[in-house]
Amino acid sequence: MKKIAILGSTGSIGQNTLEVVRRFPDKLKVEVLVAGCNLNLLRQQIEEFHPRAVAVRAEEDARQLRQEVKKTSLKVYAGEKGLEEVVCFPEIDLVVSAITGVAGLKPTLKALELGVDVALANKESMVVAGPFIKKIAARTHAKIIPIDSEHSGIFQCLDGRPLKSVRKVYLTASGGPFLRVPLEDLANKSQSEALAHPRWKMGKKVSIDSATLMNKGLELIEARFLFDLRPEQLDVLIHPQSIVHALVEFRDGSCLAQLSQTDMKIPIQYALSYPERWETTGNSLDLSEVKNLEFLKVEESRFPLLALARRALEVGGSLPVVLNAANEVAVEAFLEDNINFRQIYEVVEYCLMQHSPRDINSLDEVLDIDQETRKLAREFLKGKVKSK
Amino acid sequence: MKKIAILGSTGSIGQNTLEVVRRFPDKLKVEVLVAGCNLNLLRQQIEEFHPRAVAVRAEEDARQLRQEVKKTSLKVYAGEKGLEEVVCFPEIDLVVSAITGVAGLKPTLKALELGVDVALANKESMVVAGPFIKKIAARTHAKIIPIDSEHSGIFQCLDGRPLKSVRKVYLTASGGPFLRVPLEDLANKSQSEALAHPRWKMGKKVSIDSATLMNKGLELIEARFLFDLRPEQLDVLIHPQSIVHALVEFRDGSCLAQLSQTDMKIPIQYALSYPERWETTGNSLDLSEVKNLEFLKVEESRFPLLALARRALEVGGSLPVVLNAANEVAVEAFLEDNINFRQIYEVVEYCLMQHSPRDINSLDEVLDIDQETRKLAREFLKGKVKSK
Repeated sequence: MKKIAILGSTGSIGQNTLEVVRRFPDKLKVEVLVAGCNLNLLRQQIEEFHPRAVAVRAEEDARQLRQEVKKTSLKVYAGEKGLEEVVCFPEIDLVVSAITGVAGLKPTLKALELGVDVALANKESMVVAGPFIKKIAARTHAKIIPIDSEHSGIFQCLDGRPLKSVRKVYLTASGGPFLRVPLEDLANKSQSEALAHPRWKMGKKVSIDSATLMNKGLELIEARFLFDLRPEQLDVLIHPQSIVHALVEFRDGSCLAQLSQTDMKIPIQYALSYPERWETTGNSLDLSEVKNLEFLKVEESRFPLLALARRALEVGGSLPVVLNAANEVAVEAFLEDNINFRQIYEVVEYCLMQHSPRDINSLDEVLDIDQETRKLAREFLKGKVKSK
Repeated sequence: MKKIAILGSTGSIGQNTLEVVRRFPDKLKVEVLVAGCNLNLLRQQIEEFHPRAVAVRAEEDARQLRQEVKKTSLKVYAGEKGLEEVVCFPEIDLVVSAITGVAGLKPTLKALELGVDVALANKESMVVAGPFIKKIAARTHAKIIPIDSEHSGIFQCLDGRPLKSVRKVYLTASGGPFLRVPLEDLANKSQSEALAHPRWKMGKKVSIDSATLMNKGLELIEARFLFDLRPEQLDVLIHPQSIVHALVEFRDGSCLAQLSQTDMKIPIQYALSYPERWETTGNSLDLSEVKNLEFLKVEESRFPLLALARRALEVGGSLPVVLNAANEVAVEAFLEDNINFRQIYEVVEYCLMQHSPRDINSLDEVLDIDQETRKLAREFLKGKVKSK
């Protein structure tokens, strides 16, 4: 029985993780649930999965929950401190790190410091603090198993194979909803259009990042650190069917690719079952039904944010932190209808231009640069009005 | 330095193997070359690679060669006995088994009995005597590394992964030259049309087998024994681009596929370098250049020989031996212009119908059934005239 903690249980990844737990009640036991503010869903999850502890964002929510469950042994925590406490809960075998944004970084680090394996869905952790995370995991021998379909794909292709045998690694991108719209229409694409991802059902932030391809940029950076690759080994292929998730080319010209239906439960389950694979039904891939797998180069003029991300990938140091923070602020502004689609790029470009890249020597530095960049981005936004 | 023996050095696989040896003079040393009757090419190979021993089919050829090389230390052998002797040559690390047909079986077995690893291109060995071969290899701990692109693909996807985690294995087939010709035109397709394979440059026998898809049928049987799979786990996908060579679906719905350019040197080199991978150049796979990977179900009415092969796959025992022997005779007759394309099927079907499948308990039985079937097929052919 694998005992798991799910950080971000009410989000898209969290809910899919619980779907997998439902399939394997004799293999997985939920010990800890961490949610933000979706109390109603958390209540249902508590009732169904009987965790030993939960944490929510606000102290007020925690108080209310404590009141409701006072007849049970459930422990309820709140805030950042609460989050840290539940990650330290004893006897956890695996922490599913699925809180989006930089907020997911601290608990991820905490788990790894304790030597607990992490199923990592929070790509920002790796983007902003990849070298730190890897160092800690190496010290405690905790495993990091990616949940993201592309990184799970790379992980499965590489599994046990020596890094020196790898020539290139391709992450695929569906191209999102704007792959084929005329370039001149891009700037004014609405929120609902940007959210309408053709293949994956995901959270809002990730969906926008998929429409700009920033998602893929962050994934390139994540892959660099996660698998110890050189920037020039990493590339993106547009693949609208989203069946092939990653392709690894070895130094002898032979490639392995990982494929599956577009169902997040597949990589999530793999992260939970690793190194085993557990039998499921109804998710077979019939390529004769799919018929065609299409691959295209990325049009840089269509996805200028990817070029920015590539620069951050190559330069490293503090630049990925800036990239990520600026993008988070920009996407938030877009989702709040304060800027248009094109302006997401402008915010990120501005912040990168204003920043002098430097090496990072501590986690505090990461958090400082993150905060500075957010401030800068918000100031830049104040001067902007949404141009129609 | 890996010391190798190449059985079938003047054939297509043999020549490609020597191409790989040329690339890695510090990693590979040719100790033994075995050829049929292409003496001129063998002479060139001797001059370039300086083997310690060679074997040819005819005693007369051997005598002539001995005369020519009498001032050197090269040993020259002849016939089946000679073949056996060179396989037993001491200090061989790897035998490349690339003699086509049942003729390749005995030396393959000999090498495995001696505990020498075999890079296997001769699929007939595995088809007619798979269970014996596996038993011997298990006893001596000799490794069998497939050279065939599809089996190399499966081998690379499985590499080290437990068999119980596998749900299905797909071998791809380009579909050969007749994938899209009208069904009614199939019967009278000429030799040159059947030999014009759209993707791979191969020997004549294999090219015809690719046009009938018998090739894929034999490969299914080979895969069953090579990887200990159940018949129902194995299937064929038509994939005209021949970029994906094999696809393994695991029990959790995730798949790994092996891809590369259509270049036999890639799987050959992998078999020679295994478990390492050696750096090469100029063979990178750019999927954005390929653009589309297409997959289709097999049309059974177009490829009736595949259905016969599937029966042999499922029944096992003596039936694969009959299938292979009948097909060898039929393809020979087609290549000698004695029957038309459709009649290849008729010969194989007739021989399968006449045979009562039974278990096989010795290698002699295999060879007996092989001989009986060849006789039967030839008798059947005598009664035939090539219908136009």
